[in-house]
Amino acid sequence: MSLFTALDVQDVRFPTSRHLDGSDAMNPDPDYSAAYLSLRTDAPDEGTALVFTIGRGNDVQSAAIAALAPHLVGRDVEEVLSDLGGIYRELISDSQLRWLGPEKGVMTMAIGAVINALWDLRARREQRPLWLTLASLTPEELLDLVDLRYLEDALSREEALEILRRGAEGKQQRIAALRERGVPAYTTTPGWLGYSDEKLTRLLHEARDEGFEMVKLKVGADPADDERRMRIAREVMGPDYPIAMDANQRWGSAEAIEAVRALAPHAPYWIEEPTNPDDVLAHAVIREGVAPVRIATGEQAASRVLFKQLLQAEAIDVVQVDATRVAGVNENLAILLLAAKFGVPVCPHAGGVGLCEMVQHLAFLDAVAIAGDDARRRIEFVDHLHEHFEVPVRIEHGSYMPPEQPGNGSRMLEASIADHLFPDGPVWAAEPAAAPVAAAVR
Amino acid sequence: MSLFTALDVQDVRFPTSRHLDGSDAMNPDPDYSAAYLSLRTDAPDEGTALVFTIGRGNDVQSAAIAALAPHLVGRDVEEVLSDLGGIYRELISDSQLRWLGPEKGVMTMAIGAVINALWDLRARREQRPLWLTLASLTPEELLDLVDLRYLEDALSREEALEILRRGAEGKQQRIAALRERGVPAYTTTPGWLGYSDEKLTRLLHEARDEGFEMVKLKVGADPADDERRMRIAREVMGPDYPIAMDANQRWGSAEAIEAVRALAPHAPYWIEEPTNPDDVLAHAVIREGVAPVRIATGEQAASRVLFKQLLQAEAIDVVQVDATRVAGVNENLAILLLAAKFGVPVCPHAGGVGLCEMVQHLAFLDAVAIAGDDARRRIEFVDHLHEHFEVPVRIEHGSYMPPEQPGNGSRMLEASIADHLFPDGPVWAAEPAAAPVAAAVR
Repeated sequence: MSLFTALDVQDVRFPTSRHLDGSDAMNPDPDYSAAYLSLRTDAPDEGTALVFTIGRGNDVQSAAIAALAPHLVGRDVEEVLSDLGGIYRELISDSQLRWLGPEKGVMTMAIGAVINALWDLRARREQRPLWLTLASLTPEELLDLVDLRYLEDALSREEALEILRRGAEGKQQRIAALRERGVPAYTTTPGWLGYSDEKLTRLLHEARDEGFEMVKLKVGADPADDERRMRIAREVMGPDYPIAMDANQRWGSAEAIEAVRALAPHAPYWIEEPTNPDDVLAHAVIREGVAPVRIATGEQAASRVLFKQLLQAEAIDVVQVDATRVAGVNENLAILLLAAKFGVPVCPHAGGVGLCEMVQHLAFLDAVAIAGDDARRRIEFVDHLHEHFEVPVRIEHGSYMPPEQPGNGSRMLEASIADHLFPDGPVWAAEPAAAPVAAAVR
Repeated sequence: MSLFTALDVQDVRFPTSRHLDGSDAMNPDPDYSAAYLSLRTDAPDEGTALVFTIGRGNDVQSAAIAALAPHLVGRDVEEVLSDLGGIYRELISDSQLRWLGPEKGVMTMAIGAVINALWDLRARREQRPLWLTLASLTPEELLDLVDLRYLEDALSREEALEILRRGAEGKQQRIAALRERGVPAYTTTPGWLGYSDEKLTRLLHEARDEGFEMVKLKVGADPADDERRMRIAREVMGPDYPIAMDANQRWGSAEAIEAVRALAPHAPYWIEEPTNPDDVLAHAVIREGVAPVRIATGEQAASRVLFKQLLQAEAIDVVQVDATRVAGVNENLAILLLAAKFGVPVCPHAGGVGLCEMVQHLAFLDAVAIAGDDARRRIEFVDHLHEHFEVPVRIEHGSYMPPEQPGNGSRMLEASIADHLFPDGPVWAAEPAAAPVAAAVR
């Protein structure tokens, strides 16, 4: 028998704002950061997970994760790991902590870190990558991981089970196909706002040469820039190549419709985050207003209840789950089920630090055991910071190839953690003014 | 010239879970708590505010408030106080902190504390209660406090200004009437789930004897209990007395409709929080399903964007603003304007610790300068913990009477803070196991 002994949380920040990588219309100066959790046991192993943030506030996020220690420390590891539906429901139901959301924001992301670290530990003890640990569960076991409260007006228990049973048929063949061909990626690497037209052009050529079959451009800061960059991209990539756009919540609904219509001659594949992520009704209005351009959102969608409404209102065409925004694997499983119910593809959000490594497991699960084959499925890829992870993502011919190493993908190299500890690691100590609050003043 | 010198935050908790006061269907064991902010200057004065929580997590909330110090420390006090629209927009636009919401949860409530403390300081320097400081502003000055981004599909700048200009007509007479008669309260004191039928009956009689013209009962834990308690209340109070019900998010939408219909023979005045507060579409469905019973929500509505949608979807009949849930006075002002635009009354949420003292100022502002006279306006009242405040609320003949003392109402007695500091104050140190996490396991 082993017991949980500690939740150690480290504030790890990369000084990405020193360059313009990662800049978009709402996030001009991100320092990609991880509130990094090591869930210790009195055995030699541990589970890890991280919550991605973009700098300031990573300390608050870290404190929120640490506040969950009393739920785990001293408890039997195998007992908890054998009922990850139970611990998930316990954490989201903590009646006092729930007040801080409910089920959204800092406290929910903290719960997500704990849940994801538990899954990491479970997968490691099974000697499997997370995606395979999940795909090895029966439909009933998967369903038990989910909390359907507040969802049953859109997804009944019976419907969820039916989706999972259908997903189980042919699973082994889809696992074999996944291992052979992976899941297509699309790349945002060329599209950051801060890049010159020359750099944009060069990176677009590289993206196609590397086998990516879709790219995404950031838009929303300046209409003339958006038009010029979309025109360049269309010229470089040709008439049929999918080029998505991402406005990072910049617009109100009328603005969004106007802006997307102005760019429609360049045939964008989707417009992502056209407005506030909580605004279900505005997304529905925008979708009507810009059809046939698709609507994508989700990287900042706070809960399964929000995704449910976006789907019920026919407000989105693409569900962009994020590995660290909601309450972990379990809540994301509910979101995958909702997307399958409504027939909307799941194209996970990634980038940042560690998000590619983590979220791929959800897409692989979706591909082999939930929605199954879907040519619309693509995982975002940004070529940033992968070198800091024990198992960096493997992209071949523009597709994510599934890892076979155990765990959930979140484990960082010890040297990377040590170098980037905030504020005392060497990367930050050398430049004490590197995270100035002045940058926050608009 | 004076400068801001520090954001001191104290973790203050009252062991209310030792009794059953405050118990409801989702919050069985609250320890009413305050993340209490003292915004220090190098002058002798300071501004205070608090974020209400119900126990665990109050430390996380406190850390989030403290994380905002770099935005204020070292800045000129008068310059900041003279542009509280500017500092509000600066705080909600901090591109790195925004990632933690956006605009919801722990980080937004932290911004609310800072904004509310700034308003406290401004009102004190003007030697006015907050409500009068606000009511003394011109329509243009009030409008400048608001951020209409993401709202303009429901409330244009012109409409907002028109509401405020209409609100300015006859303002002096309404201020005089407010000082004479106050704003009606309703009381939740009789209605907690943990009370016996005898205690319920006694407290109902007391409520009417004290002049309250409405009461509210908690429901949602057990249908038979709900039916019996509503029946008792209706018998005690007579056929025409408004009796509201509060389910504290217990139900899904189908359950809510069934439960409320079962209680309809007792003619409930409203059903509050019938389901998840983020679920705009479910509230709309429930409202249709239980008419003519009104739908109320808002104490956990995370932002003005959510209130906007609840109003656009005709999902609610009552807007329940809370003093510490959103980003302070400024965001609540936007919500008051939205409610006025849609003709829905604002009946603030209160109770907890300090919420009555703080939120009354918003209702007074609404009454004198925004929506104006509205017989449907009532402020929640719970007779808890008022003795810990420098200016406790004053209820006369069942109405909140406006304070004339300077400030926003949040200032606690120093002895109360010292006694209830968590975990080292005497109230907690004496009973170290008083906030056990075991209570969180459902």
